[in-house]
Amino acid sequence: MGRRHAENLRRLVPEAQLVAVADASVERARQVATELEVDKSFSSLEEMLGCDLEAVLISTPDKFHAQAIEVAAAAGKDILCEKPVALSLADGDRAMAAVSKAGVRLQIGFMRRYDPAYAAAMKRVEAGDIGEPVIFKSVGRDKDEPPLAAYQSGVNGMVFYNNTIHDFDLARWLMRDEVAEVHAYTTVAIRPEIAQYGDVVASVVNLKYARGAIGNVESYVQAIYGYDVRTEVVGSKGSILIGSLEKTPKTFLSAGGGTHILADHFLSRFADAYLAEVTDFVHNMLLDRPPRVTGEDGLKALQIAVAAESSHAQGKPCKVSGQG
Amino acid sequence: MGRRHAENLRRLVPEAQLVAVADASVERARQVATELEVDKSFSSLEEMLGCDLEAVLISTPDKFHAQAIEVAAAAGKDILCEKPVALSLADGDRAMAAVSKAGVRLQIGFMRRYDPAYAAAMKRVEAGDIGEPVIFKSVGRDKDEPPLAAYQSGVNGMVFYNNTIHDFDLARWLMRDEVAEVHAYTTVAIRPEIAQYGDVVASVVNLKYARGAIGNVESYVQAIYGYDVRTEVVGSKGSILIGSLEKTPKTFLSAGGGTHILADHFLSRFADAYLAEVTDFVHNMLLDRPPRVTGEDGLKALQIAVAAESSHAQGKPCKVSGQG
Amino acid sequence: MGRRHAENLRRLVPEAQLVAVADASVERARQVATELEVDKSFSSLEEMLGCDLEAVLISTPDKFHAQAIEVAAAAGKDILCEKPVALSLADGDRAMAAVSKAGVRLQIGFMRRYDPAYAAAMKRVEAGDIGEPVIFKSVGRDKDEPPLAAYQSGVNGMVFYNNTIHDFDLARWLMRDEVAEVHAYTTVAIRPEIAQYGDVVASVVNLKYARGAIGNVESYVQAIYGYDVRTEVVGSKGSILIGSLEKTPKTFLSAGGGTHILADHFLSRFADAYLAEVTDFVHNMLLDRPPRVTGEDGLKALQIAVAAESSHAQGKPCKVSGQG
Amino acid sequence: MGRRHAENLRRLVPEAQLVAVADASVERARQVATELEVDKSFSSLEEMLGCDLEAVLISTPDKFHAQAIEVAAAAGKDILCEKPVALSLADGDRAMAAVSKAGVRLQIGFMRRYDPAYAAAMKRVEAGDIGEPVIFKSVGRDKDEPPLAAYQSGVNGMVFYNNTIHDFDLARWLMRDEVAEVHAYTTVAIRPEIAQYGDVVASVVNLKYARGAIGNVESYVQAIYGYDVRTEVVGSKGSILIGSLEKTPKTFLSAGGGTHILADHFLSRFADAYLAEVTDFVHNMLLDRPPRVTGEDGLKALQIAVAAESSHAQGKPCKVSGQG
Repeated sequence: MGRRHAENLRRLVPEAQLVAVADASVERARQVATELEVDKSFSSLEEMLGCDLEAVLISTPDKFHAQAIEVAAAAGKDILCEKPVALSLADGDRAMAAVSKAGVRLQIGFMRRYDPAYAAAMKRVEAGDIGEPVIFKSVGRDKDEPPLAAYQSGVNGMVFYNNTIHDFDLARWLMRDEVAEVHAYTTVAIRPEIAQYGDVVASVVNLKYARGAIGNVESYVQAIYGYDVRTEVVGSKGSILIGSLEKTPKTFLSAGGGTHILADHFLSRFADAYLAEVTDFVHNMLLDRPPRVTGEDGLKALQIAVAAESSHAQGKPCKVSGQG
Repeated sequence: MGRRHAENLRRLVPEAQLVAVADASVERARQVATELEVDKSFSSLEEMLGCDLEAVLISTPDKFHAQAIEVAAAAGKDILCEKPVALSLADGDRAMAAVSKAGVRLQIGFMRRYDPAYAAAMKRVEAGDIGEPVIFKSVGRDKDEPPLAAYQSGVNGMVFYNNTIHDFDLARWLMRDEVAEVHAYTTVAIRPEIAQYGDVVASVVNLKYARGAIGNVESYVQAIYGYDVRTEVVGSKGSILIGSLEKTPKTFLSAGGGTHILADHFLSRFADAYLAEVTDFVHNMLLDRPPRVTGEDGLKALQIAVAAESSHAQGKPCKVSGQG
Repeated sequence: MGRRHAENLRRLVPEAQLVAVADASVERARQVATELEVDKSFSSLEEMLGCDLEAVLISTPDKFHAQAIEVAAAAGKDILCEKPVALSLADGDRAMAAVSKAGVRLQIGFMRRYDPAYAAAMKRVEAGDIGEPVIFKSVGRDKDEPPLAAYQSGVNGMVFYNNTIHDFDLARWLMRDEVAEVHAYTTVAIRPEIAQYGDVVASVVNLKYARGAIGNVESYVQAIYGYDVRTEVVGSKGSILIGSLEKTPKTFLSAGGGTHILADHFLSRFADAYLAEVTDFVHNMLLDRPPRVTGEDGLKALQIAVAAESSHAQGKPCKVSGQG
Repeated sequence: MGRRHAENLRRLVPEAQLVAVADASVERARQVATELEVDKSFSSLEEMLGCDLEAVLISTPDKFHAQAIEVAAAAGKDILCEKPVALSLADGDRAMAAVSKAGVRLQIGFMRRYDPAYAAAMKRVEAGDIGEPVIFKSVGRDKDEPPLAAYQSGVNGMVFYNNTIHDFDLARWLMRDEVAEVHAYTTVAIRPEIAQYGDVVASVVNLKYARGAIGNVESYVQAIYGYDVRTEVVGSKGSILIGSLEKTPKTFLSAGGGTHILADHFLSRFADAYLAEVTDFVHNMLLDRPPRVTGEDGLKALQIAVAAESSHAQGKPCKVSGQG
């Protein structure tokens, strides 16, 4: 992911100058630097902050996000940080406080907001084309079974923090309302061995909005058939569906039926969105404007994820922190 | 609905003989009898049972289903009754007891099981094509805002009994498992005046299955844009989607984009299913076989609806009666 | 096909009374009569015309259509005849003359005009939604390889008369213009043995309209993957596509991609159209109105088919008889 | 178009070094050079060839292609030239002779071969999944009415050379056979004023293949509703459809039906293809391999276009030069 961001910045955002890259593995940092013709590479954020930089892009494993934000903020840099902003409310609050104290700007990597289909959907909502939003629905399914090592490493949060958080952000953004309470059911039935790592294979999260709307978000980390992201905003006058079941516009017709290829990865499905995201960040930084997706957005999505985890653990609906 | 069943029986099920029709409005009964060239018409089930009949089809408002089953069973007739079997567990149990005591057969009108797309989906599930079922999803949206009189009359149950019960039945059937617990959020936000009648505009119901799978069912009674029924069964090896957003296979392309017409009514979307349902009932009765969709199926779907209403009323997850 | 018409008339058109059925095989006639509870059955049209009939529906092999029309017309009956009206212009003219002389009414079985999707498309055209029609496109593909006996029997015309004639009718109807000239390429490459029967496996026919528009119609009699009928009317302001690649609204998602079932037969694809066609015929006859699809329509489609066959035989564009 | 190629080369093909840009308008050349941080800019190909270059990419108006190829070949440069290779067979032959004499390599810009959907379709064909190809169909529609000035300038060829030539190339490539004869109908009915410039608004071209298959290609330069490119390869065992009617995976559902946005420009529809094309060219040049799409391919597509124009002019089928 970090590599993709670096490539986008280096090659496709002419206004940006990619000064340095850092990675815990200095070999990897060096290799990327060489390929992208970047002069400097480091093995830590702290070292890299010694360069003459205006902003940093943080794309570490989830559990290091909050601390990296604190360090970069303390160094006075503007920040684009991948989601989630943190894995706990305490960490999230501390990161936000650091940003606030330093007076820097923080954007969170909810790139779906930059996807042409999602952006066009939001325009429809804002134009009132669907009337008053009534129901929010979203499905997020990853293709391949994560390797067991991914669970064992513990560097990323459980599904609510790593996957569903995108839908939690959309749930706020597209409905233009706050989620006040959630209820989650989860399952490990087809892979019971991951329960010991506190994670689940699939989840359905019911949403209750502050102004009365409702919703549901489903996540499934090993759909096998493809990378399948679909969202629906249902209103009093109409509805908008975002998402597709085709990767390429090609259908094969045979005696076995009609067949089309399915999307398989977020890097291809959201390639345009990632580029638009980093471009927008660079433009806003250069023009001294606030970022479009803020640290506050990151924190609020995190609060929903925390409530979903509580509901999963306690078997009952849970209020979202900070909502009434 | 009763009229559609009568037409199907009279015209398209040659093995059946439609002996009589009854309606609380004797004029309506007479008119249908005339149009369909049926000799007898009555203003009550009781009167009609005086004819030489082998079976009755019950298609009254919801609240009269259970009692009508009791009466018909006591008269020794086999029964095809529209969903729901009853509006309360007590009524449902009494109806089932009457059927059992009389030794008659009872089929409940979950016609979706007879829809070619749903039936083909079930074959895929049974063949193991999607592996082990993990997530059940279903959406049921009616097109037009129900008239206020429909709420005031009180002859039909709230959304869970009148609409979602179809999805509750599919939830059991397609997953081949029982729903053990549910959690519901509901909303009246865009039509607060119906709250006084105990009903809601939309709902999302989280499902927890006995063997560990999960699910969610959404209902919306005034989608405005169309009649939209979609179901998905997601498994460990693949997924099946049932439902379509097109009424007719026709697309209009203009500078405003591509446009297609949406389905608008269950009588057209499920026309084939209604015919297949009543045909199957007639065949099974003639061949002394049990019905394919039983009173027990009707009762179990009712139990889920009752649990959903409890969850809506109490704001917490509720166990489904009879499950563990 | 005749059986389907008889069933529709007997069961689904209450205003019609099916008096008798006839078939060259009297056993078959008798069997259908029994099943449909029709009193009389005959082994020839001539015998059947002795009954008290107001109209006849002709559904013989193609080569007997024209003569049957003459006989029925001479007996003073109104007629619904399957396409094509005849297999030669001379036969077609003679049939039309007989109809005219007898003062009876003749409808030709271009049922696609009654299909909901085609009918809705025509409304769009008439409303001016696509502006001025510029290009007509149509594809008609049958699923299974016809048995060799079908070619050997010689009772049906080559592909232009038996299949493409539907598209030739649509070509006139949807464009509201006459086809003035055609050019055809054909192939027997994958089944050379049918060339001796004067038929082909596939064809593409370019169309030139009287008022300047253009078009193309493709036919393929052994597509193997399904029954695939699609039409497009392209105009100066927009376009309409009719047709679909799905039989049932169901998609199966697996590691092999997304799969849906394809339509496989015209009797299922156009079931509604066949019923609407015969219903409309009955209504118009009862109300003393002219039929909606006339013998003239049948003749003009035949003239295009004849020109297409000439082009196929001569290797050059051919004018359509009666056009300029 | 030239600008897009330059951007791709400069930013997304790390193995390539963009040395210089040239344009008849030296201001434009200078501006692009500045934006892309290229050192040199020129007002003619001849001047630019004075630089130390290994290859040139030609993206002039159509009528200058052939001459530019001759000049670049004479200078010993490998060439990637936009389609068509020339506007006449004489020019095409001369360009090919120059390439041959100079021993340089020439690739023609049929970028659709590099589109993921087309490439995947070709793999299906090569794997025998559709059996023996029987029918080739292709539709190419541009969105907006070309300005009259585009016709008046005369720098591009008529529709067959500028648009349909893409389909003519696909017709050869996907069917793995040569087109032997064509028949064209054209129309200017909705824009008669362009007839004086020898061009047309729409065309349908019937194809006859050397080994017996058939086909049809339609072009329409002012479809208004969108940029619509669809191709179908129909075989003895199945069929492949390439193309889609959606720009973004988003559907808006309202009482007016379901609506989706349509593709509007080839630069967005084929963005990936243009990049893959130029990348493949660079790789093949660096590795001393022949280009994947050759000058011979360009010439053969040109021969079909010339035959189509002859058919349009003469009103009869025309043999393709060089085919039997």
